Amino acid sequence: MDSTQAPTLVGTAVADLPTPSLLIDLDVLEANCARMLKGIDSLGDVAFRAHVKTHKCAPIVRKQLSGRYRSVVASTVAEVEGLVPLVREGVVVDILYSMPPGPSKLRRLAALADELAAAGGVLRLMLDHASQADSLAAVGDTNWSVFLKVNIGDNRAGLPVDTDAFAELGRRVAATANIQLYGVYAHAGSSYAAKTEADAIGYLEREIRGGIDAVDGLRVAGVHSPLLISVGATPTAQVSVRSSDRVRALLDAARAVAAVEVHAGNYGLLDLQQVATGLVSTADVAGSVLAEVVSTYDEREEVLVDAGVLGLSREAGPIPGLGTVVGQPVTGPRWAVVRVSQEHGILGYVDENGQRVAGGRHAWKVGDKVRIWPQHACITCALHPRLFAVRGGAVADVYVPWRGW
Amino acid sequence: MDSTQAPTLVGTAVADLPTPSLLIDLDVLEANCARMLKGIDSLGDVAFRAHVKTHKCAPIVRKQLSGRYRSVVASTVAEVEGLVPLVREGVVVDILYSMPPGPSKLRRLAALADELAAAGGVLRLMLDHASQADSLAAVGDTNWSVFLKVNIGDNRAGLPVDTDAFAELGRRVAATANIQLYGVYAHAGSSYAAKTEADAIGYLEREIRGGIDAVDGLRVAGVHSPLLISVGATPTAQVSVRSSDRVRALLDAARAVAAVEVHAGNYGLLDLQQVATGLVSTADVAGSVLAEVVSTYDEREEVLVDAGVLGLSREAGPIPGLGTVVGQPVTGPRWAVVRVSQEHGILGYVDENGQRVAGGRHAWKVGDKVRIWPQHACITCALHPRLFAVRGGAVADVYVPWRGW
Repeated sequence: MDSTQAPTLVGTAVADLPTPSLLIDLDVLEANCARMLKGIDSLGDVAFRAHVKTHKCAPIVRKQLSGRYRSVVASTVAEVEGLVPLVREGVVVDILYSMPPGPSKLRRLAALADELAAAGGVLRLMLDHASQADSLAAVGDTNWSVFLKVNIGDNRAGLPVDTDAFAELGRRVAATANIQLYGVYAHAGSSYAAKTEADAIGYLEREIRGGIDAVDGLRVAGVHSPLLISVGATPTAQVSVRSSDRVRALLDAARAVAAVEVHAGNYGLLDLQQVATGLVSTADVAGSVLAEVVSTYDEREEVLVDAGVLGLSREAGPIPGLGTVVGQPVTGPRWAVVRVSQEHGILGYVDENGQRVAGGRHAWKVGDKVRIWPQHACITCALHPRLFAVRGGAVADVYVPWRGW
Repeated sequence: MDSTQAPTLVGTAVADLPTPSLLIDLDVLEANCARMLKGIDSLGDVAFRAHVKTHKCAPIVRKQLSGRYRSVVASTVAEVEGLVPLVREGVVVDILYSMPPGPSKLRRLAALADELAAAGGVLRLMLDHASQADSLAAVGDTNWSVFLKVNIGDNRAGLPVDTDAFAELGRRVAATANIQLYGVYAHAGSSYAAKTEADAIGYLEREIRGGIDAVDGLRVAGVHSPLLISVGATPTAQVSVRSSDRVRALLDAARAVAAVEVHAGNYGLLDLQQVATGLVSTADVAGSVLAEVVSTYDEREEVLVDAGVLGLSREAGPIPGLGTVVGQPVTGPRWAVVRVSQEHGILGYVDENGQRVAGGRHAWKVGDKVRIWPQHACITCALHPRLFAVRGGAVADVYVPWRGW
């Protein structure tokens, strides 16, 4: 138990929890985590890096890792700080802070790098601008290990590998005594738009080609140290671990030039955005929001629940609605969250295009509890001060996430 | 100082704060609050109820109220609990919990109602379904005071006043010994779509007509106790306090049948959604998010900052973008937040329709700080564990909001 707050609600039946609450079905979560590790194992010489931003808590990091895989990626300095005890314990060895390091965060990051090194671990940073390398060089007492972020067309962070800026960044890092160039990192965030396994493999191919081109570019630029290619996003990670000649050929091509690791984070909890990729089903979704029916409006076939933007989020996705009631189909007519305000959501009956349709007779009464699958688990989890880990209809543990920055 | 956490950053220059941080310009906030109270004063016999959900903290409640106006409205039980010390102190007397009360929250609400009564205050609830009245009747040891929520076409919560359900709810409440019917409540959430003062007055008229019709309906249903009509939303509250014959005539019509109060919450901080109504300008916006430039991408004229969905929100509005850089115009070409991920935002140069346009030369370097006006202050503030109250370029106080539920 890693909760930093007394889990006084352990043993409580789900229906008796306060609302809104974030529930995590432990059986489903553990199956999702085990499936990923088993899949990575099957690839042979491919490493794994678990993203912790989806849940931000130690107990789930333990489920994501094993003795063989002890690398993680974090999205905030607060997450890195929260992970330190797991490094001391040996559960985690390698932490990548995934945001380009802002100069104002270097003091905390240097302290963490030193602390992790002393505990036998390593902190790695993500660079995509020459000035970041200059900032790290200026903190000369700390040895930094870095990835270069590759922009494979998603235009999130990163540099296109065919630019002078990328080659120059690689050269500058390689020439700086207190910076070790560890690898290149490609993340197809746009793979969430995949609709089929073939689509997702296409995104994985873009990640791997981006990684290979980055390594090739660095070699041409005169960088000769060993490198690692890190690829992944939950959809591309899912297909990377499914047996497929095309995937195997892609991974082999990457392994011909560098070590390879796959990174992913959402795969443990999953959500409607992931269901929309066609790679998983709602039976695989471990996270949901418990809400209470606080009113019903029969004249307009709507139901008011006490989860709104702050309990559920305003994230959207290919499956219409801001959430779907657990147990409803996601393809045919169903009860979904059709509007949200700050603290309330409105359930309505919609068809597969999100259009309101008649016929949604329901039996909910004021006081009934409903569970809602969120569109994007990473955002919804981060809104909650505690996550209720549920098994057999009751709370098995209470996890307190590393919120804030 | 009401901070529940030591405000160790008091005195810090804004540019030296950690990022992302939520800043509140105290001079602007205080001017906005004073203007509202002065405007309410000018209306003569109209009361005021300040919504606390925008900021969720005691120091700003103090600025919203005065000895004459001591009523508030809260969106969560956690906010109500946080307000109790202000009731003991006499700053607040009357608290409305604005969500229909879910049965699972009645135990906490009954304890609060009793606690407030003992402190000389009152807790009021919002009803819009007969079963809620039944639930309150069942908690017979507590005396409940309630508003009926009127649906004036916004289809958030509430009942249309011309329905049997509304009349029946009124009768049932009036016939229940431990429930006092205090008033009717209309809130034109859709008034955020107003583009001009005339539009906003139109929404105010809908609120007031809804309130009058509700009172008339209750009289016809046989309810004869004194009633109060509560109307408002920030746009309609803004126009209610501006001298106008039409507004005065509307308020007079309401006062002919009931006492009248205006409620609003966002007016203290304001945001881009409110600027879009044309009733206020960016000079009136008190809240902003401080972020750090962590990378720049000259080849695509984009800038990466460390505020994303969790620091800024994904709220949208008529002014395109998920936020606009402070100091930029909101009508012509400008730097706005064009995309957000969990922890980062991307600034791009857009025209007034939100289309990317060339020509956005900027001088930002990695490590520079930028401030961003949010679209919807209520959501953005609620994402932050602390709010930095700023005066003269430095932190004057640190406010800790009542987060969670």
